[in-house]
Amino acid sequence: MAFVKLPLNKAFMLFEPGPVILVTTNDGKKNNLMTISWHMVTDFTPTLALTTGAWNHSFKALMKKKECVLNVPTVDIIEKVISIGDCSGKEADKFKKFELTPLPASEVAAPLVKECLACLECRVTGYIDDPGIVLLQGVKAWVDNERQERRTFHANGDGTFVVDGETIDLHHLMADKLPF
Amino acid sequence: MAFVKLPLNKAFMLFEPGPVILVTTNDGKKNNLMTISWHMVTDFTPTLALTTGAWNHSFKALMKKKECVLNVPTVDIIEKVISIGDCSGKEADKFKKFELTPLPASEVAAPLVKECLACLECRVTGYIDDPGIVLLQGVKAWVDNERQERRTFHANGDGTFVVDGETIDLHHLMADKLPF
Repeated sequence: MAFVKLPLNKAFMLFEPGPVILVTTNDGKKNNLMTISWHMVTDFTPTLALTTGAWNHSFKALMKKKECVLNVPTVDIIEKVISIGDCSGKEADKFKKFELTPLPASEVAAPLVKECLACLECRVTGYIDDPGIVLLQGVKAWVDNERQERRTFHANGDGTFVVDGETIDLHHLMADKLPF
Repeated sequence: MAFVKLPLNKAFMLFEPGPVILVTTNDGKKNNLMTISWHMVTDFTPTLALTTGAWNHSFKALMKKKECVLNVPTVDIIEKVISIGDCSGKEADKFKKFELTPLPASEVAAPLVKECLACLECRVTGYIDDPGIVLLQGVKAWVDNERQERRTFHANGDGTFVVDGETIDLHHLMADKLPF
């Protein structure tokens, strides 16, 4: 793998399709990982929102350090990603347990996940209590252009997941609305 | 088509995968439609959040009536859905222009879209100014079980769209976390 910089104004494209993502945090002592599919883009800079709260062990680090990395996994590691969502960082070092590799990020202490397709380093800019929505500002984006498997996957909510299929190009129908 | 009731506690499953959706509103005089891909589930009841603001014509009706319907289109009508996102309800009656059929909803004045796979009637429970996030409570859900085409599609943000591909069943890896 080789992460290279992705222009920040293109980073919203990683999340707009709604894939399952891995959120990494670092509380000053330890890295942690959580699996999230409740997230959305909120502007093109990019800002993003994700739903989480005190029920996730990572939440404490997220609120304490006000930083995280959003990592986009592909279907070749789907079993790891889903298993990560089914155990708590309270008990386990999830990077070790699932044989994933933390790489140093550039702007935040939370790590990039080497095995992912792309990563967005983020700062926490706010938290809405009800419902639990974390507001994020993306500050640095990375992509692995050498990766063969590039298909992401989406949670259906019942333990099944839908993998990216064919791509349809309709940019001619929405040229006015495209940011670039 | 024939919409039948979908249990409300399963309705989050329509949105968790992150498809492009059609949001309908009614301002007391006229129905309107907008295309949105920046949305997320915020709990299983379900509550949801979507990013919009005064830049969308539908926003005024959304804030005035505090109601909308989230409709899930499938790939057979992708061209209509994307074209809807490229014009304003200020000028056009989008249902007529795009030959879509508004059907009466049960709990809200905004209509269901007959040509969609499923619909969730919602009440607006709050608005966050910065970024512009509308908070919604789902109150009634519908699904068309007779529909042949059931593949939804996801926006990549550059005018291309990815269609649902294969489904992978991993419920055995996350039995503890499934809501039912």
